[in-house]
Amino acid sequence: MLRAKLLFLAAGLAFASTARAEDGYRLWLRYDLIPDESLRQSYAAALSEIALPDSAANGGGIGATTLTAVRDELVTALRGLLGVDVPVVTTATRDGALLIGTPRRAPDLLALLTEADLRAAGEEGYILRRVAVGRQHRVLLVANRDIGLLYGAFGLLRFLATHQPLEQLDVVTAPRIERRMLDHWDNLNRFVERGYAGQSIWEWFVLPDVVSPRYRDYARACASIGLNGAVLNNVNADAQILTTPYLQKVAAIARVLRPYGVRVFLSARFSAPLEIGGLQTADPADPAVIQWWNDKAAEIYRVIPDFAGFLVKANSEGQPGPQNYRRTHADGANLLADAVALHGGIVIWRAFVYESSGGDRAQQAYAEFVPLDGKFRANVLVQVKNGPIDFMPREPFHPLFGAMPRTPLALELQITQEYFGQGTQLAFLAPMWKEVLDADTFRPAAGAVVARIVDGTAGLQRVSAIAGVANIGTDRNWTGHPLAQANWYAFGRLAWDHTLTAAQIADEWTRQTFSNDPRVVQSLASMLLASREAVVDYSMPLGLHHIMATGHHYGPGPWVDDLRADWNPVSYHRADAGGIGFDRTATGSNALAQYAPEVAQRWGDRATCPEEFLLWFHHVPWGHRMPSGKSLWEEICLHYQCGVDAVRGWQKTWDSLQGLIDAERFAHVQGLLRRQERDARDWRDACTQYFATFSKMPLPAGVEPPEHPLAFYKAAQLLYPPGWSPPK
Amino acid sequence: MLRAKLLFLAAGLAFASTARAEDGYRLWLRYDLIPDESLRQSYAAALSEIALPDSAANGGGIGATTLTAVRDELVTALRGLLGVDVPVVTTATRDGALLIGTPRRAPDLLALLTEADLRAAGEEGYILRRVAVGRQHRVLLVANRDIGLLYGAFGLLRFLATHQPLEQLDVVTAPRIERRMLDHWDNLNRFVERGYAGQSIWEWFVLPDVVSPRYRDYARACASIGLNGAVLNNVNADAQILTTPYLQKVAAIARVLRPYGVRVFLSARFSAPLEIGGLQTADPADPAVIQWWNDKAAEIYRVIPDFAGFLVKANSEGQPGPQNYRRTHADGANLLADAVALHGGIVIWRAFVYESSGGDRAQQAYAEFVPLDGKFRANVLVQVKNGPIDFMPREPFHPLFGAMPRTPLALELQITQEYFGQGTQLAFLAPMWKEVLDADTFRPAAGAVVARIVDGTAGLQRVSAIAGVANIGTDRNWTGHPLAQANWYAFGRLAWDHTLTAAQIADEWTRQTFSNDPRVVQSLASMLLASREAVVDYSMPLGLHHIMATGHHYGPGPWVDDLRADWNPVSYHRADAGGIGFDRTATGSNALAQYAPEVAQRWGDRATCPEEFLLWFHHVPWGHRMPSGKSLWEEICLHYQCGVDAVRGWQKTWDSLQGLIDAERFAHVQGLLRRQERDARDWRDACTQYFATFSKMPLPAGVEPPEHPLAFYKAAQLLYPPGWSPPK
Repeated sequence: MLRAKLLFLAAGLAFASTARAEDGYRLWLRYDLIPDESLRQSYAAALSEIALPDSAANGGGIGATTLTAVRDELVTALRGLLGVDVPVVTTATRDGALLIGTPRRAPDLLALLTEADLRAAGEEGYILRRVAVGRQHRVLLVANRDIGLLYGAFGLLRFLATHQPLEQLDVVTAPRIERRMLDHWDNLNRFVERGYAGQSIWEWFVLPDVVSPRYRDYARACASIGLNGAVLNNVNADAQILTTPYLQKVAAIARVLRPYGVRVFLSARFSAPLEIGGLQTADPADPAVIQWWNDKAAEIYRVIPDFAGFLVKANSEGQPGPQNYRRTHADGANLLADAVALHGGIVIWRAFVYESSGGDRAQQAYAEFVPLDGKFRANVLVQVKNGPIDFMPREPFHPLFGAMPRTPLALELQITQEYFGQGTQLAFLAPMWKEVLDADTFRPAAGAVVARIVDGTAGLQRVSAIAGVANIGTDRNWTGHPLAQANWYAFGRLAWDHTLTAAQIADEWTRQTFSNDPRVVQSLASMLLASREAVVDYSMPLGLHHIMATGHHYGPGPWVDDLRADWNPVSYHRADAGGIGFDRTATGSNALAQYAPEVAQRWGDRATCPEEFLLWFHHVPWGHRMPSGKSLWEEICLHYQCGVDAVRGWQKTWDSLQGLIDAERFAHVQGLLRRQERDARDWRDACTQYFATFSKMPLPAGVEPPEHPLAFYKAAQLLYPPGWSPPK
Repeated sequence: MLRAKLLFLAAGLAFASTARAEDGYRLWLRYDLIPDESLRQSYAAALSEIALPDSAANGGGIGATTLTAVRDELVTALRGLLGVDVPVVTTATRDGALLIGTPRRAPDLLALLTEADLRAAGEEGYILRRVAVGRQHRVLLVANRDIGLLYGAFGLLRFLATHQPLEQLDVVTAPRIERRMLDHWDNLNRFVERGYAGQSIWEWFVLPDVVSPRYRDYARACASIGLNGAVLNNVNADAQILTTPYLQKVAAIARVLRPYGVRVFLSARFSAPLEIGGLQTADPADPAVIQWWNDKAAEIYRVIPDFAGFLVKANSEGQPGPQNYRRTHADGANLLADAVALHGGIVIWRAFVYESSGGDRAQQAYAEFVPLDGKFRANVLVQVKNGPIDFMPREPFHPLFGAMPRTPLALELQITQEYFGQGTQLAFLAPMWKEVLDADTFRPAAGAVVARIVDGTAGLQRVSAIAGVANIGTDRNWTGHPLAQANWYAFGRLAWDHTLTAAQIADEWTRQTFSNDPRVVQSLASMLLASREAVVDYSMPLGLHHIMATGHHYGPGPWVDDLRADWNPVSYHRADAGGIGFDRTATGSNALAQYAPEVAQRWGDRATCPEEFLLWFHHVPWGHRMPSGKSLWEEICLHYQCGVDAVRGWQKTWDSLQGLIDAERFAHVQGLLRRQERDARDWRDACTQYFATFSKMPLPAGVEPPEHPLAFYKAAQLLYPPGWSPPK
């Protein structure tokens, strides 16, 4: 059966010389030898050779193409997983050949599948199937375009790395959302805003002369989970990125990402015509401004022919925008959209806007954008965060979803854990993202969940997009916290298929990234799945939000009251002698009116409002009886304690995995959990004592007494947290 | 002969799964298999087992000790280099045993060497010798203390990795300087001042919970070249480092470094008693201040029992110091020295002081410090930069050397290439350091070279030290530029033995870090050795200095005249219609008078002043005839051209090594050389055109015409260079 011979290598050839520990660099693409020999042999028998059309089989010749990427990934991965060098051929000859091709490149494959398969695979999807051919078997990997073959190759490798039975291999899949993007909040000086994993991976200073090998590994990781777009620079943008020297640097990155299907976007600063164009205005109605953007777009496409488009943060948190010239967001977006339309580009315009004067911040994006529905060009998307405030541990879905039926809405999620303990705490975010994707907007009718608004199936959408604010940097393991890799992974998987469950994703990530040992899979996946709720519990339970410390957003700061009103935690929890919570019903800000009546009605009634949103929408008396029979005060305190207890549980669980996890990552996570437990206690002790100054109630039974008095936590200053610079 | 069996490992065990390229992380400690089989076998035969005393042989038990570090390094390295698992035993039984021990641990070894050997090895040195014992041979590794065994183990491995004949192994060596230190200019927010290789490797935020495995590799690298001290934080110090929470973090690092003999220093902010002590003054005569430092020292030694001491930058570039209270540098240094003396600590007080009001900056340190000679406590060293300005590409030695006979002077070198193209350009600094170490101060008499002032042999020195400002960071390869690793290496080697030549160091570094292939050794070593002079040529030839661009110090800025006087390039080159250069003779600032008469006489006469210092000490007419017969103007221009030509030569040399250098580092250096060539042209074109506005002379034959007019270079703004933040 096993024709390819098992490779033996003398020690000392690069690896054994200084044993390299598992440092996480390889992410979920580890491709270590499958320990179960019979499984390994069955895989090897079922994948006896790689049949690739024409030039890709023997190297292609002219630089890296998508097909050479397919070949290289499969050869490397199978060598690692199976311990054999699977031969690459142009024509299959063996039982167990892996047949790879598009209908155009390999028309003979059409006989082995149906037109319906190909239609289902669409532009980017693939078909992966084991078929009988006479007395032999083949594995088919077919797609309509080369990029589908690459996604399919990664799909096959995921199948193997998670130890699934090849006999059952029968997948036809296509992404549900067209643009699946990472937004890098990376400055040109390599500082990553809200980045907790080192510096920006983009080495601007030495580009284009030096092209880091890391760019390719980034592209591999993105492609392996189906991501196809990257915004290279911060939405708080620097116009320099659009100058000719920087475009040369961008082009060098784009060349590396291109074979992996990752197209480059840039964040555009709206005032760039003033800053680098020598103009006196950036008014979108000014002919010189229009000309400048048209020329700039043409210049960009000359050096980056597949440039994807612009992302814009305008008139938000101090950024310039069309309102500086009494124009609307639509005027601004359309200016840029027209400039790139000719070249096939799109514009993604962020809806994250609020002003300090503006009442309930949760209402402002809706108020500003709904009147613009229908006024955007066809190649504009409006990008909306999952919730109406700002990536809080829990928010209800953003009321804009469903409220702009004539405008494609992109969903913006935050992979980087700004409000989730940053690079230091475990918080697997897939459950939160699923919560939002599955939320029913009731617009236009029941069943119009956020996911269907975003993927366009609930409307007549022309283009669809989902973006995640990246959590990666130059840290060796990319994400700082070894387990934060799971969030990058989960984002990509959900962007491809939002019907996957968080549990499926946790399971497959754990198997690929750590081990298929059932003890590891079960323990680690359960930690992952519980983690987001635990952070909610120990930081902002029951709908509390925006009560973090100032600036860096790490740790508790519910007492802060000296910032502008819409940044003050006290404006959000509104604790007083009478109770706690933000009344967003008709008796309060009435933000609820921005939702469909079905939603507003349910959430507007304290009796039917889900507990997890209670204090988001209602100001509730401390003594209010909760469904549990306990008072609100008791429930708040018990949630905080519950969060702490959860972290302690993970510590025990993790310790039980010693020996089943490689030593370096084991020790790293162990240390971080130690810190997380202390941080969770700090949240609990700070918040419960602070809220007790209003409730005047004692801690309920089951809640540990605080370690320090409230004054200690108020005085504590967190020094030098990563990802944040104090204002200049 | 070969009793230990050759190891074979199945592919897929960690390494083959995804082939890992050589990324430079292992530095010069690569330990790859020696390709020459007969050499490998002869080594294996001569090192058949490792005989280590008692507990270290089988793991030791209680945590990492120096002896377990010896064992682990040897086992790992020999497995890599020789491809065999050399057994570790407590009692030697075989021909070719490596006998390791101190006289105390293994008194039987005394029979194999002499008392003179042991005396010569001193506290930290070692004896490494192949001896005949009856009909067999042994390799001896003996030292007076365990740390000497570790240094000796690295010495043996260097011997093997550079393919030297073991028959000739006979080394007795001891460091000539007691404290061999790296100064990290690392801020607590992980920004490295003048750092060009990523962030600080010290992960303050998650310490002490998370202890990065990188700390141990740092310690290994330091120990491998004999470094025994590390100042963890920037001399522009933050008092927070001395608070209890930070000392816990420091202690966690110290625990990792301890077995490797690297003792921790901290930079102390002189005003710490105000900032973290709650006092109203930091006056060194104030009893509360004295008490505060005494208490702080006691606290430090409780958690770091082998704490080495403080480094202080005071009353320099805005840092607080004793002069704020009308006290002297000696008063300040003695305050801290008394606090640590009880615990065996030392204080290193920097002499890098100058004021904007003060005339020729080159004279100020001398003027301020010479009167204090004899007034410092016995445990104080004054740390002096190699030259009197600031790490320029070329400076004469600092006049303080030899001028403070009653004060130990530490030499401060800059490994990080602030004025040498930073992380982007090749500049091997050993030739420059040798130039300074070998410079004769004539104080007290001829032969009192700087090296002998520093190592104490020219005087009655109580303690000696040499410090290098580190060039490392979180970049995977530690130093950004792959070849900048050579500067870290060279600093350590010279700190151990300043009689080594730059050529020896370049040779052994190249062999260990790249290849023993003679083509690589010869080509790369010749590039290294030429590089410093080439940078001088294309940036600041013939004694020119301080004509770099403002702030970031990358690239040319000879025209800059709008800063405070002692920061303006025009104050240093003093070009005018009459000529160029800084007159530091009696007709000028008379800085020459600070040197011994023999030196002052030679340098003070234009006819005997070495060409390379000409414009440092003299204002010389443009038409002045140089020894070459050419005019000064022509020589200046030709030096600039010569520097450019040198870089182009390296590009050709490097390209010729393709295939002999691993692909990743090959491409990286190739890209950086491309950039360096352009940078060198920018220096040439900017400086020659600017100086031509004074000389009014045309470019001589052999100098290429400039690419852009002068106005272009004056207007050019360098964006976001690493290692520098614009002032807040």
